[in-house]
Amino acid sequence: MTVTLADIEAARRTIAAHVLRTPLLPAPPLSALTGAHVCVKYENLQVTNSFKERGACVKLAALTADERRRGVIAMSAGNHAQAVAYHARRLAIPATIVMPVTTPFVKVRATEALGATVVLHGETVTQAEARAEAIAAECDLVWVHPYDDAEIIAGQGTIALEMLEDRPDLDVLIVPIGGGGLIAGNAIAAHAIKPSIDIVGVECALYPAMWNAIRHGDRPCGGATLAEGIAVSKAGALTLPVVREHVSDIILVDEPLIERAVNAFLTLQKAMAEGAGAAGLAAMLAAPERFAGRKVGLILCGGNIDPRILASVMVRELERADRIVSFRLTIPDRPGVLGQIASRLGELGANILGVDHHRLFLDVPAKGAKLDVTMETRDGAHAEEIFRALAAEGYRPMRLEGGAALA
Amino acid sequence: MTVTLADIEAARRTIAAHVLRTPLLPAPPLSALTGAHVCVKYENLQVTNSFKERGACVKLAALTADERRRGVIAMSAGNHAQAVAYHARRLAIPATIVMPVTTPFVKVRATEALGATVVLHGETVTQAEARAEAIAAECDLVWVHPYDDAEIIAGQGTIALEMLEDRPDLDVLIVPIGGGGLIAGNAIAAHAIKPSIDIVGVECALYPAMWNAIRHGDRPCGGATLAEGIAVSKAGALTLPVVREHVSDIILVDEPLIERAVNAFLTLQKAMAEGAGAAGLAAMLAAPERFAGRKVGLILCGGNIDPRILASVMVRELERADRIVSFRLTIPDRPGVLGQIASRLGELGANILGVDHHRLFLDVPAKGAKLDVTMETRDGAHAEEIFRALAAEGYRPMRLEGGAALA
Repeated sequence: MTVTLADIEAARRTIAAHVLRTPLLPAPPLSALTGAHVCVKYENLQVTNSFKERGACVKLAALTADERRRGVIAMSAGNHAQAVAYHARRLAIPATIVMPVTTPFVKVRATEALGATVVLHGETVTQAEARAEAIAAECDLVWVHPYDDAEIIAGQGTIALEMLEDRPDLDVLIVPIGGGGLIAGNAIAAHAIKPSIDIVGVECALYPAMWNAIRHGDRPCGGATLAEGIAVSKAGALTLPVVREHVSDIILVDEPLIERAVNAFLTLQKAMAEGAGAAGLAAMLAAPERFAGRKVGLILCGGNIDPRILASVMVRELERADRIVSFRLTIPDRPGVLGQIASRLGELGANILGVDHHRLFLDVPAKGAKLDVTMETRDGAHAEEIFRALAAEGYRPMRLEGGAALA
Repeated sequence: MTVTLADIEAARRTIAAHVLRTPLLPAPPLSALTGAHVCVKYENLQVTNSFKERGACVKLAALTADERRRGVIAMSAGNHAQAVAYHARRLAIPATIVMPVTTPFVKVRATEALGATVVLHGETVTQAEARAEAIAAECDLVWVHPYDDAEIIAGQGTIALEMLEDRPDLDVLIVPIGGGGLIAGNAIAAHAIKPSIDIVGVECALYPAMWNAIRHGDRPCGGATLAEGIAVSKAGALTLPVVREHVSDIILVDEPLIERAVNAFLTLQKAMAEGAGAAGLAAMLAAPERFAGRKVGLILCGGNIDPRILASVMVRELERADRIVSFRLTIPDRPGVLGQIASRLGELGANILGVDHHRLFLDVPAKGAKLDVTMETRDGAHAEEIFRALAAEGYRPMRLEGGAALA
């Protein structure tokens, strides 16, 4: 298989009326954060909120009348599932999606709402994949692979065509890697148009499958990551040689950086990115000197993040920035003390978010108590000022991790 | 004062290199939600994350050399402050911003970071405004009004030029109203280009100042709103006649609808909207029949919402959707009971988020206890199934409001 620029240009014509030509826009707050000139391609604005529609659209459009009649099958707990379901429905092709039983219900429902038949099977994607292959064989369905497929790769590559049309002066593209479909298509397209452009890949540090394959490494793959969209344990057979040829570097990003990048997209750029969608920005935070002063194109490749997870990411970031802090105080257990402390904190400009009493700790006298207070503060200096004031008044404050009295 | 299409076209030339031409994009998930054909203009992607830069840029560019030397002053706790500061710095014009002392520190810091001198004064915007006027007189500074100014109005009107260039087929524009600068400029521009277009205004129900002025009403203005960007108690003198002439209707939206709209932008469209920025969508939710089947242009006019507030909006919406529920159970106070309950909830597919024991309630025996359990569920039917199972096992569940064991 060799995907060429001509294939990707043909893919672009195929998707023209069916997939959004997303905006590529300068992101001055992210440029200020990273020291580079950052432009963001907003693939999270697609109908199913990820780039996966491009490949799915091209793949389904290429099916014969007979294949369309038989129907398609895919295995995915995420964006590929919704992309295939959405474009299959548009083309009146029956779609079956196999998902692991652990898939969040909201994703199951979203996929069913797009008209697909969902089969829940297996604890892991490997088990689900085996089941999907069995169903495909049994029912004679067409397999739609999420990345190891020439049409899928050509479809994903249309992103770089649009980006370089909008901003021919980009120096670098940073592209998240799961199985490698996104980076393979875009590396082929970008290098064909502009051979000097630098293509950098990103994997989450918990799933360095492509990094291992390229460097003959043996880092382990596994663990719970915020970037489940790129948590793939095996590099694609078709995508690996393309990555080897075109990609200058693969940056591994750890979970705190992914979390910080998700938060930066939200608070600085007002855009919702899932972990994999923010991976490119996380790579810039991991290696700022690699990108300083350069014109960087980031693909915000998906925006499907669970609202509760996102809320928790946001609150955790406020804790990291010392804008939410918790102190454990030792207090005499008598009327009026809480009032005194609350008033004092008010004077100091702290906004109390939560309070928790403990009377059973053994390191306080029987008539004493511990009080955990979680409050909103302006910054680290303000938190420090409050800490000192509480210490001066004899409350023996101790800093607690993790917004004790909140979540 | 009469602002004309020619003024707005001139404003567009003025801002061309300095303000982002934001994308106007179809929003299929919001169309599905509302039953209309919705396009969104993403003004939250401006550098300071609101449309206010357009007016500020035009106003500052129109100053004489002498006025630039003297410097400008504005009163604002929000988006206008940052917009004036940003464009003043770009033009090397000294800027003073007066903010009420109640302004969140993060907004003070953001404005200072843009190079402005911030003066904190007064508990209310009225007091801050009086102080700003005094400083302006004393120091001979040029007053930059947030809306009652012809150049500001012309600047804001550039949005409609761009929208109708991108989508000449829009039937309706829905525009949030604070003082009325945004709607005045855009109504003039839109009606000049396309006389048949319907211009609908939105105010938050707590601040119906323009609605009162148009309808000779006397609804009270006041209260804490999520849409503080349009919490204005008095219609503009310049903007009122424009609204009277051009706007077919003003829809008042209450707080739950504003909250729902903020959440819908985030979860369905993956975009961050502040309360005022989501007001147009809230209006569609308030009066869906008014817009059904029509091509509606929404201006997502700002994205500056406090992360902690946003996190709380998201979690509250999960509660409204029965995806986070809390039950208070009555349990015997002996070893192993919590384990039994937790295991049973696990079997039922509920994900426990928080647990709280109460032993001092008088309606349980001295050897009993109450247990508040907050859990993630799939939907209302799932929550109901869990409730019935807990009841069948004798735990006497009682539904609690507001994620008791969470925040």
